[in-house]
Amino acid sequence: MNTNSSNTMALAPSTSNKRETVCIFGTGDFGRALGHRMIQSGYPVVYGSRSTQISNLIPKDAEVLGHAEAAQKAAIIIVAIPRQHYNFLTPLAEVLRGKVLVDISNNLKLNQYPESNAEYLAQLLPGSKVVKAFNTVSAWALQSGTLDASRQVFVCADDVEAKQMVMDIVRALGLTPLDKGSLLAAQEIENYPLQLFPMWKFPIILSFGLAIFFFFYCLALDVIHTYIYENNNFSFFIAFTIPNRVFPVMALILLALVYLPGIFAAIIQLYRGTKYRRFPDWLDKWMLCRKQLGLIALAFAFLHVVFTLASPLRSFVSWRTSNRIVSQALNNQTQPLDHTNAWLSDSYLALGILGFFFFVLLGITSLPSVSNNVNWREFRFVQSKLGYLTLILCTAHTMVYGGKWFLNPSAYKWYLPNIYMLSLVVPCAVLVVKFVLILPCVDKPLTQIRQGWERNPKYSE
Amino acid sequence: MNTNSSNTMALAPSTSNKRETVCIFGTGDFGRALGHRMIQSGYPVVYGSRSTQISNLIPKDAEVLGHAEAAQKAAIIIVAIPRQHYNFLTPLAEVLRGKVLVDISNNLKLNQYPESNAEYLAQLLPGSKVVKAFNTVSAWALQSGTLDASRQVFVCADDVEAKQMVMDIVRALGLTPLDKGSLLAAQEIENYPLQLFPMWKFPIILSFGLAIFFFFYCLALDVIHTYIYENNNFSFFIAFTIPNRVFPVMALILLALVYLPGIFAAIIQLYRGTKYRRFPDWLDKWMLCRKQLGLIALAFAFLHVVFTLASPLRSFVSWRTSNRIVSQALNNQTQPLDHTNAWLSDSYLALGILGFFFFVLLGITSLPSVSNNVNWREFRFVQSKLGYLTLILCTAHTMVYGGKWFLNPSAYKWYLPNIYMLSLVVPCAVLVVKFVLILPCVDKPLTQIRQGWERNPKYSE
Amino acid sequence: MNTNSSNTMALAPSTSNKRETVCIFGTGDFGRALGHRMIQSGYPVVYGSRSTQISNLIPKDAEVLGHAEAAQKAAIIIVAIPRQHYNFLTPLAEVLRGKVLVDISNNLKLNQYPESNAEYLAQLLPGSKVVKAFNTVSAWALQSGTLDASRQVFVCADDVEAKQMVMDIVRALGLTPLDKGSLLAAQEIENYPLQLFPMWKFPIILSFGLAIFFFFYCLALDVIHTYIYENNNFSFFIAFTIPNRVFPVMALILLALVYLPGIFAAIIQLYRGTKYRRFPDWLDKWMLCRKQLGLIALAFAFLHVVFTLASPLRSFVSWRTSNRIVSQALNNQTQPLDHTNAWLSDSYLALGILGFFFFVLLGITSLPSVSNNVNWREFRFVQSKLGYLTLILCTAHTMVYGGKWFLNPSAYKWYLPNIYMLSLVVPCAVLVVKFVLILPCVDKPLTQIRQGWERNPKYSE
Repeated sequence: MNTNSSNTMALAPSTSNKRETVCIFGTGDFGRALGHRMIQSGYPVVYGSRSTQISNLIPKDAEVLGHAEAAQKAAIIIVAIPRQHYNFLTPLAEVLRGKVLVDISNNLKLNQYPESNAEYLAQLLPGSKVVKAFNTVSAWALQSGTLDASRQVFVCADDVEAKQMVMDIVRALGLTPLDKGSLLAAQEIENYPLQLFPMWKFPIILSFGLAIFFFFYCLALDVIHTYIYENNNFSFFIAFTIPNRVFPVMALILLALVYLPGIFAAIIQLYRGTKYRRFPDWLDKWMLCRKQLGLIALAFAFLHVVFTLASPLRSFVSWRTSNRIVSQALNNQTQPLDHTNAWLSDSYLALGILGFFFFVLLGITSLPSVSNNVNWREFRFVQSKLGYLTLILCTAHTMVYGGKWFLNPSAYKWYLPNIYMLSLVVPCAVLVVKFVLILPCVDKPLTQIRQGWERNPKYSE
Repeated sequence: MNTNSSNTMALAPSTSNKRETVCIFGTGDFGRALGHRMIQSGYPVVYGSRSTQISNLIPKDAEVLGHAEAAQKAAIIIVAIPRQHYNFLTPLAEVLRGKVLVDISNNLKLNQYPESNAEYLAQLLPGSKVVKAFNTVSAWALQSGTLDASRQVFVCADDVEAKQMVMDIVRALGLTPLDKGSLLAAQEIENYPLQLFPMWKFPIILSFGLAIFFFFYCLALDVIHTYIYENNNFSFFIAFTIPNRVFPVMALILLALVYLPGIFAAIIQLYRGTKYRRFPDWLDKWMLCRKQLGLIALAFAFLHVVFTLASPLRSFVSWRTSNRIVSQALNNQTQPLDHTNAWLSDSYLALGILGFFFFVLLGITSLPSVSNNVNWREFRFVQSKLGYLTLILCTAHTMVYGGKWFLNPSAYKWYLPNIYMLSLVVPCAVLVVKFVLILPCVDKPLTQIRQGWERNPKYSE
Repeated sequence: MNTNSSNTMALAPSTSNKRETVCIFGTGDFGRALGHRMIQSGYPVVYGSRSTQISNLIPKDAEVLGHAEAAQKAAIIIVAIPRQHYNFLTPLAEVLRGKVLVDISNNLKLNQYPESNAEYLAQLLPGSKVVKAFNTVSAWALQSGTLDASRQVFVCADDVEAKQMVMDIVRALGLTPLDKGSLLAAQEIENYPLQLFPMWKFPIILSFGLAIFFFFYCLALDVIHTYIYENNNFSFFIAFTIPNRVFPVMALILLALVYLPGIFAAIIQLYRGTKYRRFPDWLDKWMLCRKQLGLIALAFAFLHVVFTLASPLRSFVSWRTSNRIVSQALNNQTQPLDHTNAWLSDSYLALGILGFFFFVLLGITSLPSVSNNVNWREFRFVQSKLGYLTLILCTAHTMVYGGKWFLNPSAYKWYLPNIYMLSLVVPCAVLVVKFVLILPCVDKPLTQIRQGWERNPKYSE
């Protein structure tokens, strides 16, 4: 009588310890797939259906009964029918009283109904214990067993016991339950599978907008200006040259935007003298999408690297090289090596490659399986220290590349700076302010504030 | 008496709640490693051995007894002895009655015996409850603690309780149990660690065969034909040029083969008017190895990219460039820029790089840890939408690259087309049929069928 | 009375099955974040604090009481106060008797105190059951819910029941508990979050030292020697040429060092005639950091590849090419193709690219999420067979690249070999010895030894 822990079940022959029967309402794709998986895991399954004479797709070992008879056989009923038919359940209210109803439904649109399907079900059947679960798993994934997409099952319910029972089933099916709290969370859980990269929305819109702007900026300066004033048609720059000017600019700016909110946060904390007040909303949102910004920056950097490495293959470049060498040969001259140029060209290439290398390292450590295997201090070391090193290398790469043209008036077509000059504004600002922030006289109060010290403690009440 | 849940164990001093003693038969590598780990996790361990005077490699805190005495001390006995010695256990049948026997054995070959080791053990000792587990974990992994390879432990048994007990132990050791159902699954579980990438077999054989074919096809056209008709010895093309012609062709064809079965499936469903009939077997198998086909295609694309980027470093290319420029110089001429050529060359490079970029993106999202963190809709968006975008970009890359030669008779040596023309057949067919399938008049019935609608419902009975 | 298992909780209305109240001592960042998360997961939370009139940052649904009153309400008390204040708890010893105290503290330095904080707490309050847990999770991670860094919670305790209770809470919070055994492990658990890539320390120091050595070696031969004897200033080689000579040398040597300890181990086992004696300590440590060595080698290989691919973009290379072609043109000559050179150049490029390809494959399979999805045999196949293939390809790449200079006296400036010759020593030694080890006459006894056979069994006692 006192062997209560789950590790020390009595081995005496007891039939009560067998897995409990589960009832599934509805014989659609998902109901069948779930039933199949449950039978595999040792649960007796009984289907509740309008017609008990159903297709041969139902798992062999399952029983098929009418709704009421099926419900009576089990303590847990999986409601695998669409929300529109939930009202068919109201006549069964008495049978379902005290039972656990698992709502697995999904909608077609975000916030399609005023309340979540699970809450609607709970209103219809106030005597039952409604649990929201399984809606993020697809029938195909259950059936094929190759759970390529998420293994996570979000579970929420008002009744803790009922939730625990469902989470145990989830675990027995080889999936990972994640407790999301009370049934209020059902709305969020139902919206989850309808979302399409919600965290990526703002970063993608931002980078798309910026890229379009820089593309037309370059088009104006490199193609249209050249066409008007030099009468050269370089329209084919649209395919390769201009993208490869926009990519590095985007990569550098987006990388700087990853570290800018941290700078703002530090300044705000220093100004307020406390860390116990919320940041403005825009800063909070910005900080939450830093990873996405960084990965988009990495994508642009990758494109820049491959485009640059491929440039010797361009017929334009090989034409330009031939012409340069032929005219040298026709002038009977070989040129001496320009040492300054050799230094500059080798340096900016080396800086750029090293910057890209650390950028890729940052990308790899942001893979979920890698970041799950490092401790907190290591994660912060990589994302902060290596991140700033990457930013410094990439900024230096851009500066060495374009340095000689800063003071050259011919670089300013239509009095506009070249885009690599524009791209340096944000990263340089970030690096300068960061440098000020790590000076001991600024760093010390900031560290104290982050450890909980407050200049005017009244704020925190 | 009513605090039964695993969260609310009584804190009153009870000795019964301690972890139960586990007995291990056999003191080989795996038995010792498992015992060590169990002691670390708080289980008292007793070894059953022929000689109780055993080496100092046995964990210090473990007891060593004769088989019968050891078995009497525990409810769970881990059978860490080879299958050949299982019959030594029959005299112990009485002692082992009602106990849980964990079969951890592995064979040396696939399907070495008619029945699985676990089922054989269950036949020998019908009074015991046999559970298959732990056979996929290596002694080395248990000992070193660095579980680089799988943490998953497949468990199966006919007795649900016994299975639950073993799964609890698995969890306590920091491993992840995966319930595979009844003891019938033991054969599969025993075969699992003997498999060498079973899902990769067909894709690798297919791509190997195709690659060999295309290699000799190229060899004939580029080396042998040139040698016979132009008397040029280009045998060194074998090392670089021909591989770099075969790689992109393989990448494009394999990528198209990833999307071809989906096309077939749609046509079959449209033709049958229902989704409730099984696809032909070959189609099912093909669909299951799409991920592997895609990853092999990515490998070929990667090789193509690096080979292409490295081509300016070849001594043949630098010789060809020098000769071209020198003869230009000797003719005292500089050439004007060929704008069409510049457009074509820049476009096919840009298309190819973008195609490769999205291909890499597809590869990254197929990493298990990434695909576990996206929901089903996001996974399908990436694998379907981005996949087709990749296919379109790569097909366009090939078309722009070779477009000008299609109508050029000199491109048809021995009346055979160049391999990039062959490579376009499958992807173009896939893209054309896909285009037809997304026309509203075709897409609408297909979507209905996929939502469960049937043209002739009698089929599904 | 007999529905004890966690799967089959009674559904009868019982209030006793609700989640148990948890008490948290301390209202700092971590205490608040943990309380918040627990409330989300359905635990009633009560805070113990000196002043019950506390800031509005405390979760709304939590109660705040004095320490003694709060402790009385719960069976589990989370001690979220710094070690320096632990002695404040001694007056509460009577209230805390029999309760589970969860020590979540971290230190600022490795081994800051003679005993771990958890053991110190257990000494102060011998009547309580101390469990070490949660110290590896950050308050920020708990709050934001985005557990980018580790989800693993290391748990240790002397009392098995208390540990089980805490592990159940950990699981309910959506984290993964990992049982580390008795409270003796607390020291290790407390040191864990203070570590910064401990396994990487030796490989990084080694490769840093080697890289510095090779850098100065190259500097002497390529820059200083050229400056002294040929009066050429090639100082700009420091930025690009010399790094790109050091990178491949480092990659090759480090890759060989991954396979060297396995060779040593085999020789030692053959010599001793048994596998049951410990390897020397240095060999054990070396074998444990093979993965890190391999990944650093991959980083160097990646840098070498990108540097090499970028070299046509260098202004030095384009100057050298121009001058070569111009002088050819001025001499009115076009050169015939050197077939041997074409073969050599194409072969070493192809070998290098294939080597890099397999190297990247090795790197990808060492990602935790990938290696978790392969069985032990597949993991060993990739890491051993593909690893040796990579080593063979990279060694052949270096040999073909530099082969022609081995017998050329001008390659030995100051009678010193070029660094690629040095780089071949270790990989060639590894490959030769490995070749000997797989000869049947050597492989057979080695396999026997690895299966447990001993030449002189007395050793093992």
